[in-house]
Amino acid sequence: MAISRKIRLYIKSSSWIRRMFEEGERRKKIYGEEDVFDFSLGNPDIEPSDRFKEIVTGLMKGDTIGMHRYMPNAGLWETRRSIAQFLCCERRAEFKPEDITVTVGAGGGLNIVFKTILDPGDEVVIPKPYFVEYDFYIDNHGGIARKVKTKVDFSLDIDAISDGITSNTKAVIINSPNNPTGRIYKEDEIKGLSEVLMYYSKKLGRPIYLISDEPYRKISYEESVPDIFAYYKEVFLVTSFSKDLSIPGERIGYVAVHPDIQDKAHIIEGLALSNRILGYVNAPALMQRVIPYLLHEPAPVERYKRRRDLFCTALSSFGYEFIWPEGAFYIFPKSPIEDDKRFVSALQDENILTVPGSGFGCPGHFRIAYCTSEKIIERSFDGFEKAIKRFRS
Amino acid sequence: MAISRKIRLYIKSSSWIRRMFEEGERRKKIYGEEDVFDFSLGNPDIEPSDRFKEIVTGLMKGDTIGMHRYMPNAGLWETRRSIAQFLCCERRAEFKPEDITVTVGAGGGLNIVFKTILDPGDEVVIPKPYFVEYDFYIDNHGGIARKVKTKVDFSLDIDAISDGITSNTKAVIINSPNNPTGRIYKEDEIKGLSEVLMYYSKKLGRPIYLISDEPYRKISYEESVPDIFAYYKEVFLVTSFSKDLSIPGERIGYVAVHPDIQDKAHIIEGLALSNRILGYVNAPALMQRVIPYLLHEPAPVERYKRRRDLFCTALSSFGYEFIWPEGAFYIFPKSPIEDDKRFVSALQDENILTVPGSGFGCPGHFRIAYCTSEKIIERSFDGFEKAIKRFRS
Repeated sequence: MAISRKIRLYIKSSSWIRRMFEEGERRKKIYGEEDVFDFSLGNPDIEPSDRFKEIVTGLMKGDTIGMHRYMPNAGLWETRRSIAQFLCCERRAEFKPEDITVTVGAGGGLNIVFKTILDPGDEVVIPKPYFVEYDFYIDNHGGIARKVKTKVDFSLDIDAISDGITSNTKAVIINSPNNPTGRIYKEDEIKGLSEVLMYYSKKLGRPIYLISDEPYRKISYEESVPDIFAYYKEVFLVTSFSKDLSIPGERIGYVAVHPDIQDKAHIIEGLALSNRILGYVNAPALMQRVIPYLLHEPAPVERYKRRRDLFCTALSSFGYEFIWPEGAFYIFPKSPIEDDKRFVSALQDENILTVPGSGFGCPGHFRIAYCTSEKIIERSFDGFEKAIKRFRS
Repeated sequence: MAISRKIRLYIKSSSWIRRMFEEGERRKKIYGEEDVFDFSLGNPDIEPSDRFKEIVTGLMKGDTIGMHRYMPNAGLWETRRSIAQFLCCERRAEFKPEDITVTVGAGGGLNIVFKTILDPGDEVVIPKPYFVEYDFYIDNHGGIARKVKTKVDFSLDIDAISDGITSNTKAVIINSPNNPTGRIYKEDEIKGLSEVLMYYSKKLGRPIYLISDEPYRKISYEESVPDIFAYYKEVFLVTSFSKDLSIPGERIGYVAVHPDIQDKAHIIEGLALSNRILGYVNAPALMQRVIPYLLHEPAPVERYKRRRDLFCTALSSFGYEFIWPEGAFYIFPKSPIEDDKRFVSALQDENILTVPGSGFGCPGHFRIAYCTSEKIIERSFDGFEKAIKRFRS
């Protein structure tokens, strides 16, 4: 065999996603981009603010020397300091610049966290449904993903998490506001989770880490997102500027450790070393200079909220069942039939592209990403109505 | 233990580098940045061209929609097409856009190649001395680095490479112009290597890949760099724009496969999938739009050549022994004493920062990176002379 067995397997097993994608592309060619309603990807259609553009232009016109050079693997000190100061305002902990590692997006951030903490065979507990990349990120570093259920409303099932912890558990990862459900975990869920983690950390004589993946934190509609740092100390916060600044292609994010995390010196050094040896080296330099100006920039929440209201009201009236999203830009309805892939294919017949729940470890559902224009959303309604009627008549 | 055993070990074993680095920083604080002669890092002091800045500014002022969004994992089609066209001019093979994967620098490029081809236990042959990150990049994906010697003049020792090949060998990696030696491998070396690889590929019934890491290709003083694609088909070219455009912090490079590589469809899909699942997702979007304008931009070779001539002439007159570099911006002299770390420490006493050959798998030497100003180079000469005299008197 030429390529690795694992990669060959991944290519094979992801072939249905590829087929879906190709079918979507085929339809776009036939019917035109405007008449295929693509809700498959979390790729914001909103443009970055004018301020973002002005800052980039201003930096390029300035006379700063060495702006595009290598830098310490953890990032520019000024960038780390700005992020630490921002977090001090937002969270109930006193962050210092060294607590921050600037990363190639949240994807890069999660990989350096796993590289730093996982020995082969170590387990990471993940509540389902979950962002499917977690499987790969954990496997990259020899870890094992252990999925546990959530409650019917997709809130954390603390007992299920507790049952999922073994002597090999190194971490639990949560994502709130959640992709794909749009759920925000409430204070009592976070508190309950923290208590379980404290109990087992004590029992095992070493910390079980809580990895909090929060790229959608600024896209919250109704509730404030509870501050994980207020409840637990063995925390890695991982986030990016992809969604709130609408720049996912630029690959910029960060990891923040709790200022009081145990063994902090090694952990911080491990994160920087992992940034280096995984080939990221450092987060893109120009963007590291841009983001300190935009940390307090609000995300376009109102626009996403209008879309959510529009979409959810219509879907509800057609008979779809779902939890109203509290954050992020996804709806995760029940599939009207058990076979979610078949229903997603029925939607495709209406030129509507979505992702089956199977892709998130949660069959019987499907995901709609509503980071698309209101016009596209409205024009898709006929198709959504027709598709559910096909199976409900 | 909290952090992984491997990371803990890496931190421990890299502590001498850290101590060196800290000692350098300490000296800079005492004597001033200008009076510590830092030749330790390959971080170009040259600024990117005005054209680079104009292109970035122009792009930001334009009205292209979606410039900062997610994109296919392999990169923007226009960028891949431009690179393919550039390679068609430069090399003896007909590249198509799909042969190109745009990456987070050469570091990202090497990691996706290793992720794509390596099964646990697979071996990669590396001629010594070598860029030390190869060890990590190979280990990240379960591979084993198998180092073989080069000749006294650091040219490829084809017999040693041949002896290093086993039934587990998946690839050979070469780096020309070379870091740390500055050697450019000549046509007969490349031809000899290709013949060996063809012989063993046939014998093993599967290709042994040649990974050609060429970030310094445009920084060549005397010879043209032979075109690897003319001699062998199972090739991954990995490179970046870090050195020729002086933008290493921006993390932009690419992988090009030989248009006639076996099992090409799987390999290309594997590279894109690896870009995705290793958390790079895609190479930074803005830079992907910049580089098509700068592919034919010459590197500042004349400036580096002046520095090389200045440095080498002086070192030679002090009694240092070395091969004159033919490319890149490194000199790799013999240490006047066997213990290279001790000699590097003696140079440090003169406020000169270099890296011991041990760091490149080649003790008894040390590396000087001359991507620093002529002024700094000239002012370091006294120290270089004193240091060698200390051991030669």
